[in-house]
Amino acid sequence: MSARLPASGLRWAEIIAVGTELLVPPRVDTNSLHITARLNDLGIEVRAKAIVGDRREDLESSLRAALARTTLVVLCGGLGPTDDDLTRDAVAAVLGRSLHEDADVLLRIRRRFEARGARMPEINRRQALVPEGAQVVANAMGTAPGLWITHGDRTILLLPGPPSELKPMLEQVVAERLGPMAGDARLYRRSLFICGRTESEVDEIASPIYSPWLDQAAPVHTTVLTAPAQVELHLSTRDQSAAAAAERLDGAVAALTAAFGADVFSTDGRSLEEALGGLLRERRWRIGVAESCTGGLISSRLTDIPGSSDYVVANAVCYSNASKTSWLGVPEDLIAEHGAVSEPVALAMADGIRARAGTDIGVGVTGIAGPAGGTDSKPVGTVAIAVSTGTVRVVRTFRFPFGRLRVKQFAAQMALDMARRVLVHADPGVAFVAAAPPGAAR
Amino acid sequence: MSARLPASGLRWAEIIAVGTELLVPPRVDTNSLHITARLNDLGIEVRAKAIVGDRREDLESSLRAALARTTLVVLCGGLGPTDDDLTRDAVAAVLGRSLHEDADVLLRIRRRFEARGARMPEINRRQALVPEGAQVVANAMGTAPGLWITHGDRTILLLPGPPSELKPMLEQVVAERLGPMAGDARLYRRSLFICGRTESEVDEIASPIYSPWLDQAAPVHTTVLTAPAQVELHLSTRDQSAAAAAERLDGAVAALTAAFGADVFSTDGRSLEEALGGLLRERRWRIGVAESCTGGLISSRLTDIPGSSDYVVANAVCYSNASKTSWLGVPEDLIAEHGAVSEPVALAMADGIRARAGTDIGVGVTGIAGPAGGTDSKPVGTVAIAVSTGTVRVVRTFRFPFGRLRVKQFAAQMALDMARRVLVHADPGVAFVAAAPPGAAR
Repeated sequence: MSARLPASGLRWAEIIAVGTELLVPPRVDTNSLHITARLNDLGIEVRAKAIVGDRREDLESSLRAALARTTLVVLCGGLGPTDDDLTRDAVAAVLGRSLHEDADVLLRIRRRFEARGARMPEINRRQALVPEGAQVVANAMGTAPGLWITHGDRTILLLPGPPSELKPMLEQVVAERLGPMAGDARLYRRSLFICGRTESEVDEIASPIYSPWLDQAAPVHTTVLTAPAQVELHLSTRDQSAAAAAERLDGAVAALTAAFGADVFSTDGRSLEEALGGLLRERRWRIGVAESCTGGLISSRLTDIPGSSDYVVANAVCYSNASKTSWLGVPEDLIAEHGAVSEPVALAMADGIRARAGTDIGVGVTGIAGPAGGTDSKPVGTVAIAVSTGTVRVVRTFRFPFGRLRVKQFAAQMALDMARRVLVHADPGVAFVAAAPPGAAR
Repeated sequence: MSARLPASGLRWAEIIAVGTELLVPPRVDTNSLHITARLNDLGIEVRAKAIVGDRREDLESSLRAALARTTLVVLCGGLGPTDDDLTRDAVAAVLGRSLHEDADVLLRIRRRFEARGARMPEINRRQALVPEGAQVVANAMGTAPGLWITHGDRTILLLPGPPSELKPMLEQVVAERLGPMAGDARLYRRSLFICGRTESEVDEIASPIYSPWLDQAAPVHTTVLTAPAQVELHLSTRDQSAAAAAERLDGAVAALTAAFGADVFSTDGRSLEEALGGLLRERRWRIGVAESCTGGLISSRLTDIPGSSDYVVANAVCYSNASKTSWLGVPEDLIAEHGAVSEPVALAMADGIRARAGTDIGVGVTGIAGPAGGTDSKPVGTVAIAVSTGTVRVVRTFRFPFGRLRVKQFAAQMALDMARRVLVHADPGVAFVAAAPPGAAR
């Protein structure tokens, strides 16, 4: 890809997130993800992102580097009232513009304080400083206004850091300013979510399919991302015509879906729990889940979906052996004979929750999440998952060679996927990782 | 803070993550979080981070900007064998060094393929290209070697993008190269996690306490981060003496803990579920949870903790009214009289799960997660949470004015916190957000 600008509109942008607190290890900069998504909607691609602390020389050099590369630079953060908030000053300095106090902005800030019965602290006066020639973007949710600056063929947009303030302001800027500038071409996206294949398996199958799309006159780009027991193919294409883009993406999705079959659970961005919920609703079925090692994660994921009360009645987390017996009716001698982590117990849990919750389909999950509790024959990560509809009863044993939280995530994902496969009458026996021989339907 | 380098060792670093796939909206760059944490351990602070696509001119200009600011630049990604992998070339160009094929590296790559019974594809030869004077960092997990380049007073470290390859290589570099260079001063961290206060309440109380620490000869820096119904104060200080740093941080933690009292649930990075688990273990108590609107999230969080089977027996997710009655013994007429989302029902759920699971403490949560189901008197976000030990029975009604997932998160957090407060005999009546008058213990 070349970096030249097309005749019409904006093509590339860069984002600079400002704030020393963003450089503390656990902190993820989510603003730039949101800004990227909204710019992409307009066909504007993000070429680079930077996170810079509250240090004026770093802010200035990052902005200079970005302006040398792209026509649109979005800065977020550093518009507060304190000495640490340097974005206004740095931008004015880089552009060689003076700052002046904007009377309207100052009035709006004062009124915001007065509406709460407070006096504006003198320090907030700084937030009314505006670089010469900048246009003010009103902030309905806070004191810091946004700023829109046209500088030759460059555009610089300053937004405040708090997401609750940034998001509505960005919507306004997208509607009133960026949309009209962005030209007719838009970026259109589609995704395929796959369960039951590793990333390398997916890429081996998908790569011969998607690689030629890059050489088309209007290319389709493919990015492979992963989540626990989930591989995602993200497709994107640029076009001035929504219909042409849709046709291209429809063809791409169809070609990949044909290659992956029932391993594809979603082509519209829906999560596995949402796809499963859709199937349950279609059939007017209700689901019950009995969880041991997943500890409630499956139930929590199912109920993340709005309207899930239509098909979720009651789920049980049975950690102790005694509760598997008293709550789910798993026979004591079955546990004694096979162990709590076994295919017969998983099946009995699935049947048990089906009966106790009065649902059409039951899921039973029992395993060793670790770090303790593993044995030679059943190491940590061993999980038996069963799905029962009364007539169809399937069970499989997995080995997830991971830590506790990932064992929970992988087991929850595979359980939801096995239930989905039963609902679509697909072969539930597809191995995911180092699985023991699939348990036969009994 | 000034940007000058101290006489001894490294003080600042920048990280450049390379790869167009990192600029797709849902993708978070986790490598840089990991690298930041490991550099911080050595007392090296990260001054800026950049994410750059696979475009050589962008890579080069980002590297130039970083080298102008800091003595250590860590690049990750872009070391693969394809045309898109440009990090080697860009670094060589910026430093004005030629690339040559390293015979040892090539041999190692060939052997890696041969060990799998495969022939090295000709394309992988590119991974043996090494800038003049660079030192090779072996990669035990993949084909791309790391590179360590000393350039005047600057150090450039190149690491491969896959975390499974990057992490062990970084450990090796930290032990053998960065550790010795970093000098004696290290960065020491401590954190306080708080529940029951908003971010602005925390900052109003904490700011007069922590602000003076910045003016000390050896300052302590404070960063405020938030998670659902959780405010975190992250403290850090640099010192050559671990004991001196610990003393300073102990004092800081003590001063803040004194100000926040029982609102502080952790001063050692432990999550709320881990802190609660610790209290349960100390008392040899077992806990049972009956969830409606949180749908299993509380149970899942409790069982995220290794060893939680010591105090988790069985939890119930009772979405339907009928299951609240049949599973937990909540009287039908109680639901008819007060509604399923009410303090009496939450209390009955807490008592019910305590009895059915045979635990010492029971938690009941019932609410309207939305988006549908709200009424004028009980809008979406209304959640009643009860904790019962038989003798102590507390219940509160909250209003969480958020979307479905955040209602679940806030409700789960407040339920865990109410249980914690009962265990430490703290006042459980602290309001969090727009709460109805606290229900009295009945």
